[in-house]
Amino acid sequence: KPEEIQGVDEIGLVNGLAWTSVGGEMLQVEVAVLDGSGKVELTGSLGDVMKESAMAAISYIRSKWEIYGVEHDFYKTKDLHIHVPEGAVPKDGPSAGVTICTALVSALSGVPVKQEVAMTGEITLRGRVLPIGGLKEKTMAAYRAGIKTVAIPKENEPDLAEIDPIVRDNIKFVPAEKIDTVLETALVKFSKKKPSPALLESLPIEEGQEMPKANSPIPQ
Amino acid sequence: KPEEIQGVDEIGLVNGLAWTSVGGEMLQVEVAVLDGSGKVELTGSLGDVMKESAMAAISYIRSKWEIYGVEHDFYKTKDLHIHVPEGAVPKDGPSAGVTICTALVSALSGVPVKQEVAMTGEITLRGRVLPIGGLKEKTMAAYRAGIKTVAIPKENEPDLAEIDPIVRDNIKFVPAEKIDTVLETALVKFSKKKPSPALLESLPIEEGQEMPKANSPIPQ
Amino acid sequence: KPEEIQGVDEIGLVNGLAWTSVGGEMLQVEVAVLDGSGKVELTGSLGDVMKESAMAAISYIRSKWEIYGVEHDFYKTKDLHIHVPEGAVPKDGPSAGVTICTALVSALSGVPVKQEVAMTGEITLRGRVLPIGGLKEKTMAAYRAGIKTVAIPKENEPDLAEIDPIVRDNIKFVPAEKIDTVLETALVKFSKKKPSPALLESLPIEEGQEMPKANSPIPQ
Amino acid sequence: KPEEIQGVDEIGLVNGLAWTSVGGEMLQVEVAVLDGSGKVELTGSLGDVMKESAMAAISYIRSKWEIYGVEHDFYKTKDLHIHVPEGAVPKDGPSAGVTICTALVSALSGVPVKQEVAMTGEITLRGRVLPIGGLKEKTMAAYRAGIKTVAIPKENEPDLAEIDPIVRDNIKFVPAEKIDTVLETALVKFSKKKPSPALLESLPIEEGQEMPKANSPIPQ
Amino acid sequence: KPEEIQGVDEIGLVNGLAWTSVGGEMLQVEVAVLDGSGKVELTGSLGDVMKESAMAAISYIRSKWEIYGVEHDFYKTKDLHIHVPEGAVPKDGPSAGVTICTALVSALSGVPVKQEVAMTGEITLRGRVLPIGGLKEKTMAAYRAGIKTVAIPKENEPDLAEIDPIVRDNIKFVPAEKIDTVLETALVKFSKKKPSPALLESLPIEEGQEMPKANSPIPQ
Amino acid sequence: KPEEIQGVDEIGLVNGLAWTSVGGEMLQVEVAVLDGSGKVELTGSLGDVMKESAMAAISYIRSKWEIYGVEHDFYKTKDLHIHVPEGAVPKDGPSAGVTICTALVSALSGVPVKQEVAMTGEITLRGRVLPIGGLKEKTMAAYRAGIKTVAIPKENEPDLAEIDPIVRDNIKFVPAEKIDTVLETALVKFSKKKPSPALLESLPIEEGQEMPKANSPIPQ
Ligand SMILES: [Ca+2]
Ligand SMILES: [Ca+2]
Ligand SMILES: [Ca+2]
Ligand SMILES: [Ca+2]
Ligand SMILES: [Ca+2]
Ligand SMILES: [Ca+2]
Ligand SMILES: [Ca+2]
Ligand SMILES: [Ca+2]
Ligand SMILES: [Ca+2]
Ligand SMILES: [Ca+2]
Ligand SMILES: [Ca+2]
Ligand SMILES: [Ca+2]
Repeated sequence: KPEEIQGVDEIGLVNGLAWTSVGGEMLQVEVAVLDGSGKVELTGSLGDVMKESAMAAISYIRSKWEIYGVEHDFYKTKDLHIHVPEGAVPKDGPSAGVTICTALVSALSGVPVKQEVAMTGEITLRGRVLPIGGLKEKTMAAYRAGIKTVAIPKENEPDLAEIDPIVRDNIKFVPAEKIDTVLETALVKFSKKKPSPALLESLPIEEGQEMPKANSPIPQ
Repeated sequence: KPEEIQGVDEIGLVNGLAWTSVGGEMLQVEVAVLDGSGKVELTGSLGDVMKESAMAAISYIRSKWEIYGVEHDFYKTKDLHIHVPEGAVPKDGPSAGVTICTALVSALSGVPVKQEVAMTGEITLRGRVLPIGGLKEKTMAAYRAGIKTVAIPKENEPDLAEIDPIVRDNIKFVPAEKIDTVLETALVKFSKKKPSPALLESLPIEEGQEMPKANSPIPQ
Repeated sequence: KPEEIQGVDEIGLVNGLAWTSVGGEMLQVEVAVLDGSGKVELTGSLGDVMKESAMAAISYIRSKWEIYGVEHDFYKTKDLHIHVPEGAVPKDGPSAGVTICTALVSALSGVPVKQEVAMTGEITLRGRVLPIGGLKEKTMAAYRAGIKTVAIPKENEPDLAEIDPIVRDNIKFVPAEKIDTVLETALVKFSKKKPSPALLESLPIEEGQEMPKANSPIPQ
Repeated sequence: KPEEIQGVDEIGLVNGLAWTSVGGEMLQVEVAVLDGSGKVELTGSLGDVMKESAMAAISYIRSKWEIYGVEHDFYKTKDLHIHVPEGAVPKDGPSAGVTICTALVSALSGVPVKQEVAMTGEITLRGRVLPIGGLKEKTMAAYRAGIKTVAIPKENEPDLAEIDPIVRDNIKFVPAEKIDTVLETALVKFSKKKPSPALLESLPIEEGQEMPKANSPIPQ
Repeated sequence: KPEEIQGVDEIGLVNGLAWTSVGGEMLQVEVAVLDGSGKVELTGSLGDVMKESAMAAISYIRSKWEIYGVEHDFYKTKDLHIHVPEGAVPKDGPSAGVTICTALVSALSGVPVKQEVAMTGEITLRGRVLPIGGLKEKTMAAYRAGIKTVAIPKENEPDLAEIDPIVRDNIKFVPAEKIDTVLETALVKFSKKKPSPALLESLPIEEGQEMPKANSPIPQ
Repeated sequence: KPEEIQGVDEIGLVNGLAWTSVGGEMLQVEVAVLDGSGKVELTGSLGDVMKESAMAAISYIRSKWEIYGVEHDFYKTKDLHIHVPEGAVPKDGPSAGVTICTALVSALSGVPVKQEVAMTGEITLRGRVLPIGGLKEKTMAAYRAGIKTVAIPKENEPDLAEIDPIVRDNIKFVPAEKIDTVLETALVKFSKKKPSPALLESLPIEEGQEMPKANSPIPQ
């Protein structure tokens, strides 16, 4: 049962939730940051979609290095190894994106991850958290493993109505629109650094012009 | 619903329009420009044709760097990551060419993209905009997402006759022969720089000898 | 209709002729020469045979750089991108060899290509033009697009007897044994440089011993 | 019978246990550490899962170099070759992870491996030992080969109840939760170095906050 | 008919003979030696066996550079392009080995090849010429193309008895055990250089101990 | 018949024995050592298992360079080409391991190989010789080719009872547990160098503690 939670908070180890044909599963994403030259190793029988999620997570962190307190040049001075035990079980899909991202931030910044927290959600290149499937099964697996808090995509909030009452009673759910909410929930210590003026210039305009609302649904 | 438009204008994020067997879809192209060494990462379950579109867009920008105000050496000092959420959905075809190109110009020049604009069109290595299919379905998806302006290939103008009246009433269409028209439409600020004399020399002759008209259609 | 000819003569843009199961087609080969390190990008859903044609064309030009007035070291100081729109249409076969070669010479030397010219023919590593199929269909496509001159392989001259009279009346055909004839026909300005003495040494002997004629056909 | 144990303790040679459709097998993992530049060679008809196990083992050792007394820069000054005879027999699965890890530590640190010891177990990126299948068959193969001690995953301890009595009487079993227990069992000499203060900073917190127990199983 | 022989002797162009299901064919191997960095390009729809033949030919020449008067460091200062028109016709098999080797020696040493000569034969890494199939069909193709001399493997000499009399009357056959015999036959000028003392040391012993004859055939 | 033995002892050329569905075959492994940068070329239609055998042989020699009198840095200053004629015949399996290893030692050390010797056997990364199949057919092929001595794996000794008497009468068999026995048999001159003290430190302990015998077979 590798999916049992660890007794101590560890750096670079994060509880993810998977959904297969036989139900939900907890799986752990492990990240090792090694002195190296920028190579990325992805192991654990990961499918292409999951590997691409990992690449998106890495690029996101590279674009926000100053804010998350990671070395600017890690992409060329460190090798990253992302591994998901159990190695013989094929894994795929984008829903481990936030898990991989959290494990990377933890391993790169040296901040431990709360092992009582689990999470699920796709991550975009800009840190948005996209909805996933199988929330009912995934949260049941988290409950069985002793998880106390689960970060979920904001857009999956309505799905909470369908999960098992015993799960809902024992787990705190944290809906997240952005990865920052997930990191706040999972990392033992989380504080965004204030970017330098130079960096600010290249960031998206935060207080931009508000967009009009979507049109009403088209008549059938 | 990742296809919902963002409330603020962002750098490197552009609304594209896709056409699948189940109808039109809005999808967002995300570009991250990272300190690096010229690597290009393409993720989001992109097919070969879509990846080649991205490479054409990159080469086009490299050939026009001075005009678009991007760093000349970005092809060797930056890594580019082009990502299209939702990662589990296979995407292909050349019609995201102008979307990718716009996201790249935005991210490389630091100019935000109007999030009320969407677009579709193949791009050539010389910045021409080629026609696409599924305009009716694509524009319906844009309408549903609250889009106010859609850039389309000039050659698709006749297809506007067949789109839904409610869409036609609510969206402004901008036919484009060249990517410049798309960029003017989508970027918050767009001004072509005057190329240096050295660059001018290597550019195509703009006022060349006019070509004769095509022959009349051959008799059947 | 990207196959419509351009109104001005452009650098690195050449009209080729393709032959598919549904008839002839005009297609345009685009070449971009970019500051770089010698990488070659081939896009537009090109098959292996067409990609190998492009490589042969590049090597031919590298071996004749001095004669064609291109930089000697372009193979390591420039990146070449060869693209054939429309990106979703698979293309293959060796008959775009002369088209690609002409587009490369134009883009590398900065000499525009006459847009009223189209061409077809396989190219060898030594600049010979080998025969192709589908001349009737290809020339019909050229005629429909308004082309005035078509360069064809010398060995295809007999096939001209079978093409449509209206095509024959409106298009001038230039049979070519060597790529030089094609370049003279298509480039706005073409003059072979006299190679330096050092180069001459490494060139094939031009006035060699004449070969005996082929034997008479064997009796059945 | 390459699976016969060697008469002397050797560096970089470790007895593993495999389980195939025709029963258990002993197989030997060989590691050569060669002056080089960081290349990794994996041979012996190894499947992807087994190759990924090897990569996880290498990264684990890289992350713990100081503790295991290996050169810090072996990942760039040495080539590693991991070979599993007999070369024609396809091998796969993650259960050789601990065997590969032990062979690597032996070869990199120069400490011989006790040839009377065999082992089986998946390894994670953090040195945990995960459970495997086929313990009954594997231990029978170890017994037949003359093995005296077998390291097994702690989670497989309950499976010992089902193995053959003659095997249980002749072999000492060492359940391991962490690879350290395996290394202590197999290496002729094993002592963890005390990491330097700098290293300690980047290690997981060893005395972290204890996690609550898992919830009781959910009612059916 | 690209298989027609050229009127002048050329550098790096050699007539080979192929054998397909529809009979014999003459094909020409073209080699271009380009300033570069040691890359090898193999084009013309060549199969793996033919590509490996080319690699064997290159290594053979690298091992004999001093004897053949080629630059010692061509493997790192030149790019080699080996092309076999017609590009759309798949070609495979080892029997073009001597043809490729001859074209390489010609192109690297600057000595023209007699265009009235054709050849067939597998080459080994040590310059031996191994037997091939289809000699009857191949030589008929050579005859039709006007070839006057054909180099064949010594072991194929008995097969000459079965070729067409008109071919035998018009073509001179040169049986070759070693590639040197082929080169003498095909190159306009061929003289082996005397290797330097340093090179001699690393060459095989030429006057070694004679081997006993093969045993008589075993009784049935 | 490339499998006929050569009349003189050559460097880098070794007689191997193969076993196919149509009987035994003698095949020759050729090795060329070329000034280069450490590339390895494997040609002759070799399957993956045979290629991995070659890699194991190379690593073995790299680990024993001082003992065999080869340059320490050949892995980065020389290119190795291993070729097995006849190129069109697919070859696979690990039993050419000792043949490839012998050819490599010969070519790297400059010592000729006795051409009256043939051999078969898998090689491990530590120089052990593992058993092979088809000894009867292989040795018959050796006999037919005039071979006088055949090195075989020690574990195949019992199989000698089944080979043809005429073969047994004419060939001397040398059973080998280690590759050293094969090298002594095949090389014209073989003497192991005494390793330097520095090297000795990194070698396996030669006089280690003896292992207990294997247990008696388990009762059925
Ligand atoms: Ca489990
Ligand atoms: Ca599990
Ligand atoms: Ca959605
Ligand atoms: Ca969607
Ligand atoms: Ca069209
Ligand atoms: Ca078209
Ligand atoms: Ca065995
Ligand atoms: Ca075995
Ligand atoms: Ca032909
Ligand atoms: Ca032909
Ligand atoms: Ca033969
Ligand atoms: Ca044979």
